Amino acid sequence: MDNFTFQNETKIIFGKDTELLIGEETAQYLENEKLSKNILLHYGSGSIKKSGLYDKVVDSLKKANINFIELGGVVPNPRLSLVREGIKLCRDKKIDFILAVGGGSVIDSAKAISAGTYYEGNVWKLFETMGTIENAVPIGVILTIPAAGSESSWTSVVTNQENKRKLHFRSPWIRPKFAIMNPELNFTLPDYQTSCGASDMLAHVLERYFTNTKHVNFTDELCEATMRTIIRNTPLALKDQKDYNPRAELMWASTIAHNGLLNTGREGDWSSHMIEHELSAMYDIAHGAGLAIVFPAWMKYVYKQDIQRFVQFAVKVMDVKISDLETTNNEETALKGIEALEQWFTTIKMPIKLSQANIDASKFQEMAELCTKKGPVGCFVKLEKEDVEKIYELAK
Amino acid sequence: MDNFTFQNETKIIFGKDTELLIGEETAQYLENEKLSKNILLHYGSGSIKKSGLYDKVVDSLKKANINFIELGGVVPNPRLSLVREGIKLCRDKKIDFILAVGGGSVIDSAKAISAGTYYEGNVWKLFETMGTIENAVPIGVILTIPAAGSESSWTSVVTNQENKRKLHFRSPWIRPKFAIMNPELNFTLPDYQTSCGASDMLAHVLERYFTNTKHVNFTDELCEATMRTIIRNTPLALKDQKDYNPRAELMWASTIAHNGLLNTGREGDWSSHMIEHELSAMYDIAHGAGLAIVFPAWMKYVYKQDIQRFVQFAVKVMDVKISDLETTNNEETALKGIEALEQWFTTIKMPIKLSQANIDASKFQEMAELCTKKGPVGCFVKLEKEDVEKIYELAK
Repeated sequence: MDNFTFQNETKIIFGKDTELLIGEETAQYLENEKLSKNILLHYGSGSIKKSGLYDKVVDSLKKANINFIELGGVVPNPRLSLVREGIKLCRDKKIDFILAVGGGSVIDSAKAISAGTYYEGNVWKLFETMGTIENAVPIGVILTIPAAGSESSWTSVVTNQENKRKLHFRSPWIRPKFAIMNPELNFTLPDYQTSCGASDMLAHVLERYFTNTKHVNFTDELCEATMRTIIRNTPLALKDQKDYNPRAELMWASTIAHNGLLNTGREGDWSSHMIEHELSAMYDIAHGAGLAIVFPAWMKYVYKQDIQRFVQFAVKVMDVKISDLETTNNEETALKGIEALEQWFTTIKMPIKLSQANIDASKFQEMAELCTKKGPVGCFVKLEKEDVEKIYELAK
Repeated sequence: MDNFTFQNETKIIFGKDTELLIGEETAQYLENEKLSKNILLHYGSGSIKKSGLYDKVVDSLKKANINFIELGGVVPNPRLSLVREGIKLCRDKKIDFILAVGGGSVIDSAKAISAGTYYEGNVWKLFETMGTIENAVPIGVILTIPAAGSESSWTSVVTNQENKRKLHFRSPWIRPKFAIMNPELNFTLPDYQTSCGASDMLAHVLERYFTNTKHVNFTDELCEATMRTIIRNTPLALKDQKDYNPRAELMWASTIAHNGLLNTGREGDWSSHMIEHELSAMYDIAHGAGLAIVFPAWMKYVYKQDIQRFVQFAVKVMDVKISDLETTNNEETALKGIEALEQWFTTIKMPIKLSQANIDASKFQEMAELCTKKGPVGCFVKLEKEDVEKIYELAK
């Protein structure tokens, strides 16, 4: 086990009707921190208005005498252009707090605004150079889509439409102060978004699970527990859209998958995320769908690095029964695990091939080049440009 | 799943040589919080001097120009009398920070001092009435014994020798700000303390695991993962005292077992802790040993409340193979799980009967009376005085 530091101070307020607490919770936070009641209300393209959530939030904020300025319009793979607009608003209107109401894209956009408001340079530089900030506008969250884990993570991923680059930035300053999570808010999610979310959260654990660090029994166990929970509950959530409990299990799992706990004492991989970021920057494919395509291909490319770990994944996560196999050949078991993962993605109607997302081979070389622009990606196996290209090929 | 709020802001600094960071970490915290460099160094009965840890800590504090006043002498089942002494010291010497170096008893004692210093009334009242505080002296920890989880919990348990009462107090104000955890510091632990610690941490999960809350799949999985880790690694740690990895797994598991994560969305039981507290208040038996005696007896008394949950415990935690049993009678499987837990306690040389700790039946009635003084205990099954007495009988 490696040495580590772990701290995650986000306050999670979880359960039915918790969105009604938003005014009170925000006012309390602002009072404790001696901040003004000027806040930015940041959201997406209007689904919170259709669902009635917007009205509830506005009502609760008004009751708590909070002055809010609105900035909607965040789209999946959130845009740098809107971030710049948000930064200008926060500066002009002396905003002391950002409330992000939405999924990971809205929260990531809020984090970029948060980081950029007090930063004197160009906010995109922070993403390009993983810059350092000394202050940020505090953020609160009402989460509507369990997926990205952004509600308690310290990362933000933003897309620059001008050069089609999707980059991430991290800082403890942008970790949300609180996150309100009501699984009922997911009842209206289209199946496709539920599945993309499940794929995203599973990928967050997979990135941490495939490690070269030895003696990580406890975090292996926690990762496996989280993955089994996602694998079991996603089909249940899809089966009955308004069944509270599978939604609740998934929502809490999505946070734990990405709050830092599951990589304590171990090195993760993260190349699949890098490979997928190029896909979604180039083709604007949903992040979760991109990950469902990339991960099995990555696995097929790297499993020989540690066949025993892939056997463990097959048996403990994908429930491959060694007794059902004709041989007990480890490689066969490892491959059965990858196959079972593909089957699961297919069951929840995620694509597992680029062709299913209408993506052809024409940009493989360009994407592989961009992906490895700063050097090889991944820790479990270090991947050069040629390797990344081969993984796109395997995902054809 | 129940609604819940979860927040745990303790910064964990984990791994080899991390105790050498104590001066720097403390100075940084004091600077950030604009506090003076007057701290109380609180520890136990001298084992940190024998092990050399004391010298390292003092050296690091001096290098960081921190003024420390010492208060040693904490004993297992920490005493109210020393807490009162600490409170007086903190007030007289204008102490702004308490550094607890030791196991759960030292940390619990520090927490009681922390809570009492700015509290105008009698500190014991806080424990007797679960009072409220509005401020406390911040605490940092160097953990030497993985067991109580006190390094990131918000509870303190203290014994009043005058009336032999052992009571707990909780407040977010007394949760440690940071905890330094180096598994190497456990290399010198006597086997008995390693086992008591393992029993204590396992009990923390068991208290959360046995619940009447339905649809708690994810937290069940996390609890089971944590229990399996403890069960697997304790014998390994005992086998080779200086094997870093099992010690590291146990140490991190002990924190997660009690940091609040494993009871998110579910109601725990906690009667076994109450029943044990009377034992250790009356006989000064080690808490972990007391729990190893009480838990199997409690299980035998209550398992019919939810046989299926006990079957799940048997199969998923204690690795009882249903195929090995002559019948697949659920009750039999449930009882096999309890038996397997007793066997495991025996393997790690914990007592499982009161007679092994030389405790006879003479005080059963008195302890049961004290235990239920404020009403029935436990949530999984509510236990009246008569029930508690029967559990002591089952543990004879």
